[in-house]
Amino acid sequence: MRTVNVGLIGLGTVGAGVVRILQEHHEDFLRNQGVDLRLVACASREAQQAEDLGISDIFSFDGFDVINNPDVDVVIELVGGTTIAKEFVLAALKAGKHVVTANKALMATDGREVLELAQKNGLEVALEASVGGGIPIIGPLTHSLTANRIDSVMGIVNGTTNYMLTRMSEDSLDYATALAEAQAKGFAEANPSADVDGFDAAAKIAILASIAFNTSVTMDQVPTEGITGISPVDLDYAREMGYCIKLLALAHRTPEGLDIRVHPTMLPLSHPLASVNGVFNAIYVVGDAVGETMFFGQGAGAGAAASAVVGDLIEIARHLTYEQKPMPSHNGHQPMPIKPMDDLVTSYYLRLPVEDRAGVLATSAAVFAQNGVSIFSVVQRGAHDQTAELAYVTHSAREEAVRASLKGIAETGILTGEPVLIRVEDSEA
Amino acid sequence: MRTVNVGLIGLGTVGAGVVRILQEHHEDFLRNQGVDLRLVACASREAQQAEDLGISDIFSFDGFDVINNPDVDVVIELVGGTTIAKEFVLAALKAGKHVVTANKALMATDGREVLELAQKNGLEVALEASVGGGIPIIGPLTHSLTANRIDSVMGIVNGTTNYMLTRMSEDSLDYATALAEAQAKGFAEANPSADVDGFDAAAKIAILASIAFNTSVTMDQVPTEGITGISPVDLDYAREMGYCIKLLALAHRTPEGLDIRVHPTMLPLSHPLASVNGVFNAIYVVGDAVGETMFFGQGAGAGAAASAVVGDLIEIARHLTYEQKPMPSHNGHQPMPIKPMDDLVTSYYLRLPVEDRAGVLATSAAVFAQNGVSIFSVVQRGAHDQTAELAYVTHSAREEAVRASLKGIAETGILTGEPVLIRVEDSEA
Repeated sequence: MRTVNVGLIGLGTVGAGVVRILQEHHEDFLRNQGVDLRLVACASREAQQAEDLGISDIFSFDGFDVINNPDVDVVIELVGGTTIAKEFVLAALKAGKHVVTANKALMATDGREVLELAQKNGLEVALEASVGGGIPIIGPLTHSLTANRIDSVMGIVNGTTNYMLTRMSEDSLDYATALAEAQAKGFAEANPSADVDGFDAAAKIAILASIAFNTSVTMDQVPTEGITGISPVDLDYAREMGYCIKLLALAHRTPEGLDIRVHPTMLPLSHPLASVNGVFNAIYVVGDAVGETMFFGQGAGAGAAASAVVGDLIEIARHLTYEQKPMPSHNGHQPMPIKPMDDLVTSYYLRLPVEDRAGVLATSAAVFAQNGVSIFSVVQRGAHDQTAELAYVTHSAREEAVRASLKGIAETGILTGEPVLIRVEDSEA
Repeated sequence: MRTVNVGLIGLGTVGAGVVRILQEHHEDFLRNQGVDLRLVACASREAQQAEDLGISDIFSFDGFDVINNPDVDVVIELVGGTTIAKEFVLAALKAGKHVVTANKALMATDGREVLELAQKNGLEVALEASVGGGIPIIGPLTHSLTANRIDSVMGIVNGTTNYMLTRMSEDSLDYATALAEAQAKGFAEANPSADVDGFDAAAKIAILASIAFNTSVTMDQVPTEGITGISPVDLDYAREMGYCIKLLALAHRTPEGLDIRVHPTMLPLSHPLASVNGVFNAIYVVGDAVGETMFFGQGAGAGAAASAVVGDLIEIARHLTYEQKPMPSHNGHQPMPIKPMDDLVTSYYLRLPVEDRAGVLATSAAVFAQNGVSIFSVVQRGAHDQTAELAYVTHSAREEAVRASLKGIAETGILTGEPVLIRVEDSEA
């Protein structure tokens, strides 16, 4: 049996996880999968990790040494980002190497360029680890679920924000406290923007939608809102109404095009995604034949992401070992227009901080009526400081009309602060 | 591009679902997957369904006509059972046809014979639809999760019993009423034994364990208990203690061998499987790298099972279209001893109907102590008819010692009826 020689660029947490799996499970993979995987080259900016892992003998500071090593069959790219990582990936494909990557930013930005080059050169690019950590989701979408026209993909794909929202909901923490706690536990970075502003989730839904709908969406096309405006009071209102609030990354097929977005979302407590708490991730997929499915697991962590990376590697290694020809993928690639947010029709939760005086309810309700926004429920609560809160939930309404209503209400002068708008995802509403 | 010619044996609900998907999505599969699938032969015991589907021209009453049709590349077997279906599958493999099957009983009984013949003849046997309806689980286990040593597979894999237990829990229905309701809704057969006695679940866990642990387990090796002994009162006790009761099919890798069984199980309400209600199925998998994962969806229904069948078909069709060589599978096949139930160590819920008189608590507690079974909690409740109930939960104990305790307690003469034993699956207990 031939060996399959692996080159690894990036020896951070996930890279170290990959090395350990290859060291510990070499014999298992030989016996169970029939592949003889050998790590023959690795690169990183620091030599320490290679030393700790006992692989200094194959270490280089230069990723191109890995790519240009003639022994290497498959390059694993775990550098991240869209600059040098892109150079590595394209160079590897030009050098005739298959690629395994966990790089969501790259695949959500330049994925089409990467996949087309791979296809042209008869090579594979595998990216299971780029979405949902170790959760098998790209595999199922590209294999088991291919009989379906996929209608929806909705995911809790960012563990940091799901941890924060879970803590805010369970213990009424405010946003800042939840963030500090997540940072202390190592779930959030010092600069948390990619997570809390929704960009990480936007990259992941761009990748998932591209695969599920046989199209090409980039992360900059995804309307994105983070969780920085969410307060415990919104989580309380949500629970009273039978909802939770999750940062959802979602994509629906609609007659007007692809409805794709990332934002805090009220979800019925009965929804399968509603019980996904803490750092866990889950992706909910609806297909015309299969109906509802959900894929749940750890979205981050060395082991989980390394599981996905090595799973992809074994797949490629089996193809090499058993001399499979590369098969074309994504050959049904079709452009889909992105549905503008203004045209979105859904139900909305709107929390308005208002003056505590007669007429604020009538005034605000009148503005909604003028804009054709029909109200499903409203709760008014007084505070102790001459202010009050109106929490509206609308029937299905156009986003444009809801935005116009908020503008109109602001012009009446009754607001004492910024209103909060949270979209509701509820097929029953 | 070559066509891939499909023969279908069995035109029941799932078969009709397969035909409809092939009719409706032919162009999608051509564009997105690059396969030209043609249904060229079908067989069933009745001609009516073929007529309804507009495929009378390719219909035969004899499944062997499908198998022996020289045009057929892939045979889909949807007959079920282990008699004529086995003949069809073996004959198809001898005739050089790839096979897609949804037949859990066959694969859980004669799976090894079928897979070995396929391997010998360089053919594929795909069986995603045999477990969990449309839920991708065999695909993930054989592809995305291959980097892992799988430690546990636990599933709610029978929708009928999950529906019944959900109804019994939510509305305090008794077993007979829940069964009658399930039958009225078409979720349970007139003879419900395969579902309620756990045999269906046993077949499915035998298949899952064989794949997950690279071994060969047959359904007759799986210790199996159904749900016929469960009462609403057990569901009430469970809820009070923070548990639900599910019919779990589970398999754990242990130092002493494979711990595999099917029985009603108390599961903490915080467990991912605990929120899987009604007819839904879910399979929970723990791997050494990926940690906890779960796969959720519809375990039954024409569309769901047909989704899995056609997904498998497309996979084989891609291999044929792009001239892939068949790859060996399961080559790491290793025998694993089955751990005897007597050696099981877990926590137990034991509900004892007893006489309502002084001393029954002391008497029963003494018997547990004599057998070395340590008690975690006990609740005693009086009834209005001179009887009472003792609901014990033990710490981890050997099944043999628990069985001996029940025997000892029966010998004291305090029991007024059959005790109920439910195993608890709780890593915290």
